[in-house]
Formats: sequence, structure tokens, C-alpha cells
Amino acid sequence: MQFLTARATMQPHAVPTLDDIRDAAARIAPHAHVTPVLRSRSLDALAGCELHFKAEHLQRIGAFKFRGAANAVFGLDAAQAARGVVTQSSGNHGAAIALACRLRGIPAHVVVPHAAARIKLAAIADFGARIVPCEVAQADRDRVTAQVLAETGGALAHPFNDARVIAGQGTATLELLQQVPDLDAVIAPVSGGGLLSGTAIAAKSLRPGIAVYGAEPAAASDAHESLRQRRRITDMVPATICDGLRAHLGTLTFPILSAHCDGVLLPDEAEIVAAMRRLWERLKQVIEPSGAVALAAILRDPDRFRGKRVGVILSGGNVDLDALPWLVPSS
Amino acid sequence: MQFLTARATMQPHAVPTLDDIRDAAARIAPHAHVTPVLRSRSLDALAGCELHFKAEHLQRIGAFKFRGAANAVFGLDAAQAARGVVTQSSGNHGAAIALACRLRGIPAHVVVPHAAARIKLAAIADFGARIVPCEVAQADRDRVTAQVLAETGGALAHPFNDARVIAGQGTATLELLQQVPDLDAVIAPVSGGGLLSGTAIAAKSLRPGIAVYGAEPAAASDAHESLRQRRRITDMVPATICDGLRAHLGTLTFPILSAHCDGVLLPDEAEIVAAMRRLWERLKQVIEPSGAVALAAILRDPDRFRGKRVGVILSGGNVDLDALPWLVPSS
Repeated sequence: MQFLTARATMQPHAVPTLDDIRDAAARIAPHAHVTPVLRSRSLDALAGCELHFKAEHLQRIGAFKFRGAANAVFGLDAAQAARGVVTQSSGNHGAAIALACRLRGIPAHVVVPHAAARIKLAAIADFGARIVPCEVAQADRDRVTAQVLAETGGALAHPFNDARVIAGQGTATLELLQQVPDLDAVIAPVSGGGLLSGTAIAAKSLRPGIAVYGAEPAAASDAHESLRQRRRITDMVPATICDGLRAHLGTLTFPILSAHCDGVLLPDEAEIVAAMRRLWERLKQVIEPSGAVALAAILRDPDRFRGKRVGVILSGGNVDLDALPWLVPSS
Repeated sequence: MQFLTARATMQPHAVPTLDDIRDAAARIAPHAHVTPVLRSRSLDALAGCELHFKAEHLQRIGAFKFRGAANAVFGLDAAQAARGVVTQSSGNHGAAIALACRLRGIPAHVVVPHAAARIKLAAIADFGARIVPCEVAQADRDRVTAQVLAETGGALAHPFNDARVIAGQGTATLELLQQVPDLDAVIAPVSGGGLLSGTAIAAKSLRPGIAVYGAEPAAASDAHESLRQRRRITDMVPATICDGLRAHLGTLTFPILSAHCDGVLLPDEAEIVAAMRRLWERLKQVIEPSGAVALAAILRDPDRFRGKRVGVILSGGNVDLDALPWLVPSS
């Protein structure tokens, strides 16, 4: 049978382990960049701690999302792959699936709501994926996605509620802890929880004493509330400029974060914009609002991090240069 | 006598050699960053050649200028140093002298014209230098500088017409050729010619077959004209958004470039802004207009570089984020 390949295929709904993350690192190594760790004296002074910025905005497609997408796409067996990959994404995950599929030479179908950011849509199209439009409501996204899956027989690569994707995202922290082994804490943005789940599994497995924090806009605090109330909250309406941080935790990421995350910190919109601007001014890096939320969380709560060595995941740098948040009113 | 120090002091008006650049590298090593070399698949595809970006915007104070300033300041003997350092600069050189003097614990006096960019003025003041205002006209800058020199007995550190400064700037290319030994060409912005002179001496000494180009705004083409007409042109009025590229070649840099520079390329203002924006979008780096002129020159003249391995000096990243050139009319 075609599904019984020589290599055991990871199940999309299993909780990934450190070994899965190591497998993912080996699988994506021919395609993904090893991103650098950046430092800034002046940001260290400002924060009162040692900041080690993992520069995932320098990853291919300009965001960590390429890691998970590449692991999912290159983890498919040949028969699955031939039927293509289907995903829903308004942003970086769509571009990541599009590029990974182009590199493997298979079709990609990306279900995209009308409201998606122009720059991210253009990237998806540039990589040769088929864009399938849908309404913004999650129900319509799911309806259209199911329809494309049925039409194509393709494999679903969910943006975060997928073990292969989570394992791929975890490779960023696997790398970070090779580059800077003695971190006291690591902090990553949280939306659907794929990045933070992979971060937590990698960090806690390699360095049990490390603290792992999520950072989430206060205006989209569903992950924080889900962990606090110990139930998955999916009916909150996000109101943040962070277009990459508007999803809710998934059925797979919620239990992982419940077990391994030490807290989700909640900077407000002004703090996120200020942190983004500081990253541009001091680190000279183009970081999107979603990518600045972790630094914003640290600067909001300096006592928690004082004197510590902190890994900060700069998750993406795809921003519309004609609509910078300090120059235009946020929508 | 105090001036007869054990270590021979370099004369400010001698033409520096590769050995001077090596000495400078050793002198500034405790203070300056070794900056990375950045790559971009999409910019390579756009340019039709292999671009190796020397990330001097990640140097201390956000520009290569710290190299020359640190070499000048730390090259002073103790008696000279105690009287402080005087310079004139509307920008990055002033900040660089200010930081180098702070690190050495000596006074810095920076003569600054009223029209200087706000962000660059703030940096000079933040590093604790004394700012001495003057008029924009070069004659007034020189008058005020002479006055401060007379008052303080300090040492002049000219922004470019100084062998110690040129040798310091050359360390960027010394490093670049260690990082990427087999470059076919290197291209750097040219204003007063300090960076390009250091670049040319380092590159031609280490790799005689290499081509060395300057890049200069067409709207401030005095270096190009000076080399073409074989005489130093100092009466041209620059009209460019590149606030770091408005000086004329000096008496020391003109003969160095006449001997070692293979040409000065002249992108126009729109090409410079477009190149700057591409560096932000594709390389995710915050580069000031003056720092984007070299890429603009390559994209304007792709046949010259096709298939080559090209070192590109990204000279600085100090830009006013409230006044980006694609959002506001250039002055």
C-alpha cells in the first residue's frame, strides 16, 4: 500500500517529541536557513537583561513558518505529495506552504480570506500557489478548505494544529539552544500555538529548568485566557494590528501549552508598536508587528527578566512599508 | 617628549597602506563589531549576480564610521588624547567620534551644522559629546572648527581626509575579504572618499585583480566628475536625499581614488529609494538612503556585474522612521 512507506510517517495529531523536532531539523536542512542570533547593547540596557534575538524574519519567506511548512511538505510520501497540499492561511504560512511545494514540485492550494494583507497575498502568488478566496469567518474558511481537499485529494497542512508543523517550528529553538546553550528563558509569540508549542517542547526537553513564555497582544488574549481558565477559548474576537496573531489555540496546541508553557504575557497595542520601532531603530531589522510582541512583553514586565539570558523569537518581517503603524492609524 | 611614544604614530596626511589597515583592525578590535555578510536569493536573482552585503549598518553607532573614528581616537597618544578630539560632522562620523571618545574617556567636540538630521544629532548628544553649532556653509564649519581646536588644543579627526580614518574604514573590506575571499568586485558609497579609499587600498592590496567601484548619487556627482576630469571638484552643490553623501573628495582621498578606483557609478534619486526599499523588503534590513546607493548602482548597470561575485558595503542604517523617502517628498 502506498501509505506504508519505508520511513514511518508522523501522525498529524500526535504530540511531537524532541526526536520529532530533530527529525524535522534534518528534513528541512537542505531547504531552510540556519538563522543568526542578533544582539544589541542598547536593547539589553533598555530591558535590563541579555537579549538573544533569534532572527526568524531572515528565514525563507521572511518568517519561521517555512520551518513547519517544509517539514509537513517534505514529510509526505510520494503518493500523498503528488496530489498536492491544501492549507488555509491569511499570511506567512500560506507563503511557506507555497514555497515548500514549489521546491518539491507539487501543487499548493491556499485558502485565503479576502481581508489578507496585500504583501502576504503577493508572496503566496509569487511562489506559484493557487489562491482560493473565502470569507473571513472561520466557518467559511473551513467550508472552502474541505471543498478543495475533496476536489484535489490533497493533504491538509494546518497552520498550527498539526504535529509535523509544530515539530518544524520547534527547530528554531533547537537551533537557538545550539547557538546560545545557557538561556534562562525563551519567549515566542502565540497565536494558534504552533510556534510556541514547538518552542516549549524543544526548550523544556533540552533544558528542563528553562522558562518558556508566550507573548500575545492584550487585544487578542485568547491563549492567555485559555491557559488561565484551563479550557480552550475560541470565541474571542481579536482586535490587534498583529495580523499574524489572530488565531485561537488548537486542540493539539492547547494541551501542549497547558503542560509546558510558564505563562502568556500581554503587551498592549502601543507597547507592541513601540517595541517594533525599537527593533527597527536599534537592531536595524525590519520586523512585523507580530514579530515584535515578544520584545514588547519583556519591556512591559522587566522585573521578570532582570539579569536573565533571554531568547526572543523574532518571528517574521513581512510588513507593508506603505502602512507602518507609527505613521497610519491602526485598523 | 610626550610625542615620541613607543608605538610609531601614523601621520594624518600620509597615504595609508595595507599594514596600516591591519594595524587599525587590531587597534579597534576590542571596540568594534565584526559585522556579518548577508545574502538574499531574491536580490541575487534581481541583480543577476552574487551579492555579498557587508552589514556595516550593524556596526556600532549604526554605520562603518565607527571604524575610522575608533582608529583615530585610540591611535592618539595619551597627551593628545587628554586634550580631547574635535571634528565636524552632520551625521554618523560625529556619533562615531562621540562614542569612541566616551569609550576612551576623553572629551569630544563635534561641530554640527543646523540642518543636520534629527536622529543623527540625537546620537551625538546621547554619547556625551559637546555639540558646537555652526552654519551650513563649509567656510563657517571650518571657522568654528578652527576656533574649537584653538580653544581646546584637541586633536582634529577629519571625517575622511585623514589617513587614520581611511585606514579604519578599510578594515571593513579587510574583514569582508576574510569572510568572502573570492570576490570579483567590491562597491562602496563615496562622499568625501574615506570609505572608498580604505576599501580600494584593502581590496587592491589583497586581491589585485578585483574591481573597486564607488557609488554616488547622480545628484551629487562630484567624485565621478573629479576622477573623470582628473581634478578635484569642490564647487558642486549636492541635491540628494543621501544626507551622508554630500561632501567632496579631499586632498588625500582624491589621489588614492585616482590611482585605485575603477569608476564611480551614478544612480538617480528614484533608483536609490527603490534600492533602499528592496533592502528593507527582501533583506529585512533598515538601511539609510546613503547605504543603499551601492545596490542602486548595481541594479542600474546589471551588465557590468552579471554573474560576478560582488561585495556591497551597506554603509549605514540611521534613518528617520517618521520620514521615509517613499512616504514623504524628498527635500
